[in-house]
Amino acid sequence: MSSRKTVDDLELGTLRSKIDGLNRRILELLQQRGDVVLEIARVKQEKGLDGYDASREDEMLRELAGSAVGPFGPPEVKEIFKAIFRSSVNIQERKRLQEQRVRRFDLLPPGGIRVGNVGIGAGVSTLFLGPCSVESEEQMDRIASRIARLPVQKILRAGAFKPRTNPYTFQGLREEGLRILRATADRYGMATVTEVLDTATLDVVAEHSDMLQVGARNMYNTELLKALGRSGKPVLLKRGFMATLDELLLSAEYILAGGNDRVVLCERGIRTFETRTRNTLDVAAVPLLKQDTSLPVIVDLSHALGRKDILLPCGRAALAAGADGLMVEVHDAPDQALSDGFQQIDLDSLDELVAGLGVKAPEKENG
Amino acid sequence: MSSRKTVDDLELGTLRSKIDGLNRRILELLQQRGDVVLEIARVKQEKGLDGYDASREDEMLRELAGSAVGPFGPPEVKEIFKAIFRSSVNIQERKRLQEQRVRRFDLLPPGGIRVGNVGIGAGVSTLFLGPCSVESEEQMDRIASRIARLPVQKILRAGAFKPRTNPYTFQGLREEGLRILRATADRYGMATVTEVLDTATLDVVAEHSDMLQVGARNMYNTELLKALGRSGKPVLLKRGFMATLDELLLSAEYILAGGNDRVVLCERGIRTFETRTRNTLDVAAVPLLKQDTSLPVIVDLSHALGRKDILLPCGRAALAAGADGLMVEVHDAPDQALSDGFQQIDLDSLDELVAGLGVKAPEKENG
Amino acid sequence: MSSRKTVDDLELGTLRSKIDGLNRRILELLQQRGDVVLEIARVKQEKGLDGYDASREDEMLRELAGSAVGPFGPPEVKEIFKAIFRSSVNIQERKRLQEQRVRRFDLLPPGGIRVGNVGIGAGVSTLFLGPCSVESEEQMDRIASRIARLPVQKILRAGAFKPRTNPYTFQGLREEGLRILRATADRYGMATVTEVLDTATLDVVAEHSDMLQVGARNMYNTELLKALGRSGKPVLLKRGFMATLDELLLSAEYILAGGNDRVVLCERGIRTFETRTRNTLDVAAVPLLKQDTSLPVIVDLSHALGRKDILLPCGRAALAAGADGLMVEVHDAPDQALSDGFQQIDLDSLDELVAGLGVKAPEKENG
Amino acid sequence: MSSRKTVDDLELGTLRSKIDGLNRRILELLQQRGDVVLEIARVKQEKGLDGYDASREDEMLRELAGSAVGPFGPPEVKEIFKAIFRSSVNIQERKRLQEQRVRRFDLLPPGGIRVGNVGIGAGVSTLFLGPCSVESEEQMDRIASRIARLPVQKILRAGAFKPRTNPYTFQGLREEGLRILRATADRYGMATVTEVLDTATLDVVAEHSDMLQVGARNMYNTELLKALGRSGKPVLLKRGFMATLDELLLSAEYILAGGNDRVVLCERGIRTFETRTRNTLDVAAVPLLKQDTSLPVIVDLSHALGRKDILLPCGRAALAAGADGLMVEVHDAPDQALSDGFQQIDLDSLDELVAGLGVKAPEKENG
Repeated sequence: MSSRKTVDDLELGTLRSKIDGLNRRILELLQQRGDVVLEIARVKQEKGLDGYDASREDEMLRELAGSAVGPFGPPEVKEIFKAIFRSSVNIQERKRLQEQRVRRFDLLPPGGIRVGNVGIGAGVSTLFLGPCSVESEEQMDRIASRIARLPVQKILRAGAFKPRTNPYTFQGLREEGLRILRATADRYGMATVTEVLDTATLDVVAEHSDMLQVGARNMYNTELLKALGRSGKPVLLKRGFMATLDELLLSAEYILAGGNDRVVLCERGIRTFETRTRNTLDVAAVPLLKQDTSLPVIVDLSHALGRKDILLPCGRAALAAGADGLMVEVHDAPDQALSDGFQQIDLDSLDELVAGLGVKAPEKENG
Repeated sequence: MSSRKTVDDLELGTLRSKIDGLNRRILELLQQRGDVVLEIARVKQEKGLDGYDASREDEMLRELAGSAVGPFGPPEVKEIFKAIFRSSVNIQERKRLQEQRVRRFDLLPPGGIRVGNVGIGAGVSTLFLGPCSVESEEQMDRIASRIARLPVQKILRAGAFKPRTNPYTFQGLREEGLRILRATADRYGMATVTEVLDTATLDVVAEHSDMLQVGARNMYNTELLKALGRSGKPVLLKRGFMATLDELLLSAEYILAGGNDRVVLCERGIRTFETRTRNTLDVAAVPLLKQDTSLPVIVDLSHALGRKDILLPCGRAALAAGADGLMVEVHDAPDQALSDGFQQIDLDSLDELVAGLGVKAPEKENG
Repeated sequence: MSSRKTVDDLELGTLRSKIDGLNRRILELLQQRGDVVLEIARVKQEKGLDGYDASREDEMLRELAGSAVGPFGPPEVKEIFKAIFRSSVNIQERKRLQEQRVRRFDLLPPGGIRVGNVGIGAGVSTLFLGPCSVESEEQMDRIASRIARLPVQKILRAGAFKPRTNPYTFQGLREEGLRILRATADRYGMATVTEVLDTATLDVVAEHSDMLQVGARNMYNTELLKALGRSGKPVLLKRGFMATLDELLLSAEYILAGGNDRVVLCERGIRTFETRTRNTLDVAAVPLLKQDTSLPVIVDLSHALGRKDILLPCGRAALAAGADGLMVEVHDAPDQALSDGFQQIDLDSLDELVAGLGVKAPEKENG
Repeated sequence: MSSRKTVDDLELGTLRSKIDGLNRRILELLQQRGDVVLEIARVKQEKGLDGYDASREDEMLRELAGSAVGPFGPPEVKEIFKAIFRSSVNIQERKRLQEQRVRRFDLLPPGGIRVGNVGIGAGVSTLFLGPCSVESEEQMDRIASRIARLPVQKILRAGAFKPRTNPYTFQGLREEGLRILRATADRYGMATVTEVLDTATLDVVAEHSDMLQVGARNMYNTELLKALGRSGKPVLLKRGFMATLDELLLSAEYILAGGNDRVVLCERGIRTFETRTRNTLDVAAVPLLKQDTSLPVIVDLSHALGRKDILLPCGRAALAAGADGLMVEVHDAPDQALSDGFQQIDLDSLDELVAGLGVKAPEKENG
């Protein structure tokens, strides 16, 4: 078996060169075909004709599949040419958009995505801290006053509109919650993020918060995503717990396509069979997303894990994987929280966690 | 080993009787406790006091856990009493709602849920048929004219507002699509169902369609569910593709709690590791849901399977499991469909499918 | 839209001719490329190399996308070439699958797979009935005497070697259990199936049982599968709870490749996020497997569901989907069972279940 | 809300005293119930019966909910008693877990688990490096000579017996592969690990390798686990790709119960719906396992990810989460590998990876 490689290498190598050559010639013809397609589109547009002609495609497919003589039979020929047709539709539909905007690597300004006085994705980790829900002014003050003192770059988070699974549980203080969150954050000079549930309440949320969060349950809510594209506000877009990374990127693309590039992606665990954690933290999502986009990526530890005792090792892991920040739910009295008490840490534990993570302090803010 | 059973049976039986007795005594005390809780609530209400006092609960928990001597240690005592506290809050919050409305077995009127001239869940299977998307008047007419002829109870389905994953794919004809769907259905005397994406467009959809569909991506959209509760229109509620049955029932509860009992549940496959089907049809969901609710349950075969070649055996399986109906996507020219062509069957295949399923013809409608 | 076609003119006609010409030239090059692909596959197979090389594809995609100059940008080039790659894999697969024995449709003899006096897969449903574990002679006799009376085609099942997750739970009576099972079955003229755990104990199990079961945990145990291929005994091969259908067919192929075609496939539920059932019964697996192979397919209801209350509707569903039989665990006193008591039905419930399923009685056995 | 407390009056005080009294009496009964539960568990264990009986619980719940007369309706009664049942399981579990050997924290000797000249789990990360399969002496030498030079603690890994899904792909050089692996490792003074597939070949593998690997497909192979318990050799136990952490610990318990404490656990990704990675690396498994056991935990990056381009960030994440080592597949010519070429890195990439991970050099070996 030992001398096999050298002989085979030659044989395989030759065959692979042939493939490479054929690929190049096919690509050349495809580009010529693309030119003609665009020319047809131009002519049709001038004449006010519909761009897309399904019956014409069907005719071509039938003809090509019918004349399929060789290793590729009719099903393969149809599949390949359907891909060619789809791509031809694509280049017409978005002639100016040479690729998905989310995959461009010039989206992120040097200072990162600015949210209030914070720049996300510019080298310093950002912590998103606060309670699951705004419950009262006193509660928010107790929590925010401690968060404000932490020597890290942070954003105050808290839910005002809560998307609860059960209709009879606490649904959030809504507008009142927004006002409390804003007032508290202003008192301590912090930026805020809070969830927006619906196009109907987008305006009021946008008026009160520096950043708008799309929750995991809303990642596929395309009407909301479109509205956020128009809003221009920074968006924290959470991955659905049943969403692939490609679907997350397409949801981001909805916002970007609407003219808003200020999107931060958030891995928050996916639903699997394992029950030890509420969801399964998909840590590989961080480097995979960063290969595809320049948008910042953070990890919501509290929702990914649903337990407090492994926040530190998992937070370290997320940062080691390249995350631009972490979200952690914090409460002054988790046992009394109106929602998700079991996964919120208390204020002393927060100090320990932040010390253990060893995140860098932010640059001094000038003015 | 053979004589073991008789001795052990006695021993285990005695112990189990003890448990049963203790259960009854615990329940008795719990009910007494419940009476006092309601009395406290009444007193507080009279005095205008807040109903919920987290610090009081915390105090009780600390005291009880501190005095935990016996097999149950502090964590177990806390868990049990937290359940008692939660339940005590529940009975205050929804005193009149003795249980979840969705679990009541008197929800379904004898004629089933009426949608136009059709009664869903009243013994005769209902087929929900039509294309993925409304594409044109001609297309809808070609399809509807064939569906109208089928000797089964049916509802015309087609998407006008489409929640597409990709922002650059066809998003539906929207208002124009609603008008075409309505006109086509009226021409053939059929009732319609179409998806509603958002609270902002609910009114226009409700105006044009007999039944409103909540898609799998929107099952957790609580703002939309609440609005549907207020709308009073029949709702077809699809299970999220990563939603448990308990979550589906809670989503239905949102609609029912808003005053609308006319909800049909729809199993449409869940996301798993298996790739042969687009999703995995969870056929056990049908009898499980029917154990918990009197609401009708149908199965969306097209989305569950994502392929056409096993519609018949899976449709038979769904009906054998007790489903009240099936949804199947139908197109006059699937290869040219603007969306999901690969899973839509053509009109001749529809005839065969319906014949193969052997569903009963509906009772004659008397004007 | 209807008058569109007539507006076509010379200019468009010319451009469309160009497209047609380019299509033909692209197809020609694709077929040449297909020839080289098959040649590479042949060389690799001779060397025992893996056929599919994702990194090679990635490299080609990167190179082609990188040199995409023209109307088709990197995303379109990637999409088209991915379709070409998929189709190239298809034609290799088609060749390879044509060679897989499991996909032949002449495997099943007219009388089905004979196990004792029973023919599985020959039109009459077979029920595989018995307790989870052999516990004692008396227990087996109580159960088998009732099963024997049922007017259906059946095989007596019971575990002697038990693959328990927990090392401290009952592991089966092993050799003693095999002897009890054999003696009981002989007394009532029934054929038997029992699980084989390991190549080391295969011979003793094969000596005592008419059919050998490969449990879900052993579906990937290739050494065991090979040994079963050599044994010549009928095999009941359960799908792993984490196995795709393709993997199940490949495990069957191991047995067939060893010279043993007498394999019955068994769907028994897959592991998903839903917790209402122990596993999720993948009912679509039945027709999908039957499209690919002529081997009989049965459904193990007890393990798929892990609960007794929906056996009837799910059993009906499995048969409606085309299953050749059902497996149900039965115990004379489920509450006292040494294993899996919660999913075994009692003997009266068995009578009801069989009546409810309405399976045909077997043909009279002659001699 | 702040002045609420002071308003309390006599009436409320009296009612609250009643609540306190009822709480105490309920707790008393709960503890009595706990005693009976433990007694039942003891009796069942003596008989080898399963401890947990879901149908018994269901029955009790139905009965209790059915007799719920008072302010607590069936849902509350169910919720409370479910908490009681969970807690009752907990106290049995606590007793049972206290007895599980794998959960003892004195298993690991100060120098870690010794495998040849390496101590795993004693503070210095161990890298498990080598090709997927032994292919030839030359191949092993090219790879091992480079690995030997790395300034890290390492073990040479390579498969001789391969558990391939497809019966027609390369199945490993088997005995010949064992000999090559041993000779190569000896030449470079390295310890080895290789997979054992089956009890029948355990002896020959144990004779040639310093450590025995149980692959993911064999994690549930209890006969093999028992044999490994008797063998006394160090074991590398991989998590099944659809196994919960509790199941992994129970598989380890099989080996420990047989008298062999030298077990290293390996997280290698679980099967989910996400397709970007071959499996989903469950990084939280590392700290969760370390909370439950003192056995070392490593991460197999190659199988978890199935791609090479994110090894570094994910390797960093695994170490940051507390892993005691990493496994990475390495090949001198990945494109020519006889198996899994797409996930093996070449030798130059290995150097970069090790540099990037920044793992500590091992202590000098004396003698």
